[in-house]
Amino acid sequence: MFRNTMPRYEILSEDAMQTLDRGWRRIVSEIGVEFILPEAVEILRAAGCKTEDATVWFDPDWVMEQVAKAPRQFTLKARNPAHSLTVGGDHMAFGAVYGCPFIREGDQRREATMADFENLVKLSQAFPELDTPGGTICEPGDRPLDSRHLDMVYALMSLSDKPHMGSVTSGANAADTVRMVEILHGGRERIEREPAVISLINVNSPLRYDDRMLAALLEYVRAGQPVVITPFLLMGAMSPVTVPATLVQQMAEALAGIALVQTVRPGCPVVFGSFLSNTDLQSGSPSFGTPESALGLLCTGQIARHFGLPWRSGGGLTASQTVDAQAAYEALMTMLPTFLAGANFVMHAAGWLESGLTSCYEKFIVDLEILRMLKEEFTPLEVDEDSLAWGAHVEVGHGGHFLGAAHTLERFRTCFYRPLLSSTDNFERWQRRGGEDATARAGGIWRQTLADYQQPMLDETVDAELREFVDRRRAELGD
Amino acid sequence: MFRNTMPRYEILSEDAMQTLDRGWRRIVSEIGVEFILPEAVEILRAAGCKTEDATVWFDPDWVMEQVAKAPRQFTLKARNPAHSLTVGGDHMAFGAVYGCPFIREGDQRREATMADFENLVKLSQAFPELDTPGGTICEPGDRPLDSRHLDMVYALMSLSDKPHMGSVTSGANAADTVRMVEILHGGRERIEREPAVISLINVNSPLRYDDRMLAALLEYVRAGQPVVITPFLLMGAMSPVTVPATLVQQMAEALAGIALVQTVRPGCPVVFGSFLSNTDLQSGSPSFGTPESALGLLCTGQIARHFGLPWRSGGGLTASQTVDAQAAYEALMTMLPTFLAGANFVMHAAGWLESGLTSCYEKFIVDLEILRMLKEEFTPLEVDEDSLAWGAHVEVGHGGHFLGAAHTLERFRTCFYRPLLSSTDNFERWQRRGGEDATARAGGIWRQTLADYQQPMLDETVDAELREFVDRRRAELGD
Repeated sequence: MFRNTMPRYEILSEDAMQTLDRGWRRIVSEIGVEFILPEAVEILRAAGCKTEDATVWFDPDWVMEQVAKAPRQFTLKARNPAHSLTVGGDHMAFGAVYGCPFIREGDQRREATMADFENLVKLSQAFPELDTPGGTICEPGDRPLDSRHLDMVYALMSLSDKPHMGSVTSGANAADTVRMVEILHGGRERIEREPAVISLINVNSPLRYDDRMLAALLEYVRAGQPVVITPFLLMGAMSPVTVPATLVQQMAEALAGIALVQTVRPGCPVVFGSFLSNTDLQSGSPSFGTPESALGLLCTGQIARHFGLPWRSGGGLTASQTVDAQAAYEALMTMLPTFLAGANFVMHAAGWLESGLTSCYEKFIVDLEILRMLKEEFTPLEVDEDSLAWGAHVEVGHGGHFLGAAHTLERFRTCFYRPLLSSTDNFERWQRRGGEDATARAGGIWRQTLADYQQPMLDETVDAELREFVDRRRAELGD
Repeated sequence: MFRNTMPRYEILSEDAMQTLDRGWRRIVSEIGVEFILPEAVEILRAAGCKTEDATVWFDPDWVMEQVAKAPRQFTLKARNPAHSLTVGGDHMAFGAVYGCPFIREGDQRREATMADFENLVKLSQAFPELDTPGGTICEPGDRPLDSRHLDMVYALMSLSDKPHMGSVTSGANAADTVRMVEILHGGRERIEREPAVISLINVNSPLRYDDRMLAALLEYVRAGQPVVITPFLLMGAMSPVTVPATLVQQMAEALAGIALVQTVRPGCPVVFGSFLSNTDLQSGSPSFGTPESALGLLCTGQIARHFGLPWRSGGGLTASQTVDAQAAYEALMTMLPTFLAGANFVMHAAGWLESGLTSCYEKFIVDLEILRMLKEEFTPLEVDEDSLAWGAHVEVGHGGHFLGAAHTLERFRTCFYRPLLSSTDNFERWQRRGGEDATARAGGIWRQTLADYQQPMLDETVDAELREFVDRRRAELGD
């Protein structure tokens, strides 16, 4: 997997970090955080926190003691060991878009189906740029709400041998996921020792964890599986309109959740999550790829390192309705800072469109091209005597060209980044080839990739056991 | 004008810089540089350089002595003093695309005309994001080759009151430009004291300066006007295929030219130029927005600061044939590193398409949006007690929203970046409004801006004198 050994771009002074530290400490101790699940409140009360109804007030020093129990990095096991992931340090893992009810395919926009879900998992499996398909790569609206998590988890497990994410729509669905992970990976004891599913726990910002997310969190954490605790912050709606105020809220929310995790199961892997952008205050709609979100992202990396925690952010985010220039520049306005800040776990890295309402096949390919370029760009340059190519300069001299130089001929196949999608054809050649823009060409790429897809082998006994579990649970749920 | 007071993203170690230093020193002293103008060779010979025919070998220490005479920053005067530019330090100046024979307007691609030239100068004047229209914003193919420089310079002077660039197609054309600058700015003595035109001197890489560029260089430098000395490097064609080898060639070429400038007129303002990308070695076509070009750009900033020189690079570069996703991500893949590296003079910052063959109206607007976002993103975040918005957190508490908070209502008009082009409309609203993608919307923006354009006042006597000069020279040139 990709390791980002380039320098981090850090923009917060030590003073600024201290100011932010004062901010989150004041929020958790004076305003507190709501946990809309009595069991969670009771856990924190028993650990010594002051509580009243759903509100929990924290001693910030106690929070830091809990946070210190979390590992700085951890391994997430894949059923194909070659695809196991390290989360933390200078590692960066990339997953596909997550949570979209709609699909865009060319000019067509429609409700997502299970067939789309499977296609997108297959594409995530096929492209080495992605380390995980993620989880709810789209919401298959053609499957019953109660049991579709079973279909999704089974598709993730059977169509891909990369690690995947778990269902978080309820405690019961999380328990189903954990059971399937046990089947796939050799039992409870094994997965408690070697975590094999990672799940997204969003905060119902501001300062509230809802009951479903908390129930799911408890299931995963009790099984020792990592969770990504993510404040969901669109500035102006879920947080104040200034970046620093949003950062302290993000710290308060994430750290409170992480403290809960470490209270339930000390040492359980956990990721400091960030999903931070701003509202367009003219329309009330979310904006993505904005300067504010980029600044927030850069700061968040520094903050997560300040706490010694692996962190999640980034992605190919955009508010654009279609795969146009806006979609591309907004995606890169998020992805380039993601690399500068060294995010460890990057959700929504391929396929995000329309503020996350839509999983888009063509955007998937555009995002992969961006990802491939950035992985190359964030690979340190080797500057040594050999790299200066003195012989080539002597050979070519003044006014010649290097196309036929020995140095070039020895290296021409591998010396430069080779694009997946971008075209350098001159205008005439491009026209002769059909004059397709990048989005049209992306359509050809994903279709060909799906046609070439090969399903990774899955042990027949395990597969049968998974299917049996899915069928039984589906029946129990009445679908 | 914009000052970039964010940290610079530097990726070269001290060791790497020393290796590069050894590299350029060896090139200028052992291979030398060709100057295809006997007058230039004679100037360098008289200053003590070893020469043979057109080749000049340099003592690198002598080169550094000359380079040390160049100012670290300088002012470029505009006829409207509010638009005068500082070049160097943490200032960043942005100019429009330069040198394109073709125009793209919507789906139409055609040869550029003088009317296009005037339109693009007007757009450059109208948008505050640009500090200069640049120079040859497109090549007006409908005007005679011999005298079109007169039309272009007159258009730059009369349709814009921002500083502009000079003609470099020959020594005589440069002399015409200088004469017009004298007329506009109050005479030779005045412009020698306060430089008022900046010109692009490209190296005919590798390691060769051609006669036309050198003749133009001598005209401008003798008049004390700044020149941008720019090695023109597409790796694999004009330089070796490794970034370090290309960087040392760039240093050798630029520093040799700068040494010539300082020999002719010590203290003359000069800019260390960089135009560095790579060839697609499959097609032989140039590539832009590549990882290699981004790395080269980051290094070049560090190198220019190492020499204490203002520097030029960047722009909205792309190989794309149309204003699609590729055009946008490639442009930003160049522009974001341009800000990270703190380039002082950024040509091609608006309108570049198709590897620089085409000036495109819609791309002009896409690039301006990118520029506006980056100027906002590279404005340091103020983190202080006030920015933490404690009152807003207290007011909203748990699970509410900040849309109606007092803190939001006081700031909602100005707190976030407001886009020029990007849309946050939800899908239904976007469809109702016509479902136009970013490129189509850009068409509306530039047309409206042209319709609203107001020509800046120009003193009637000066204008008459300029016209008289243009008419006389045109007649002399037989057009």
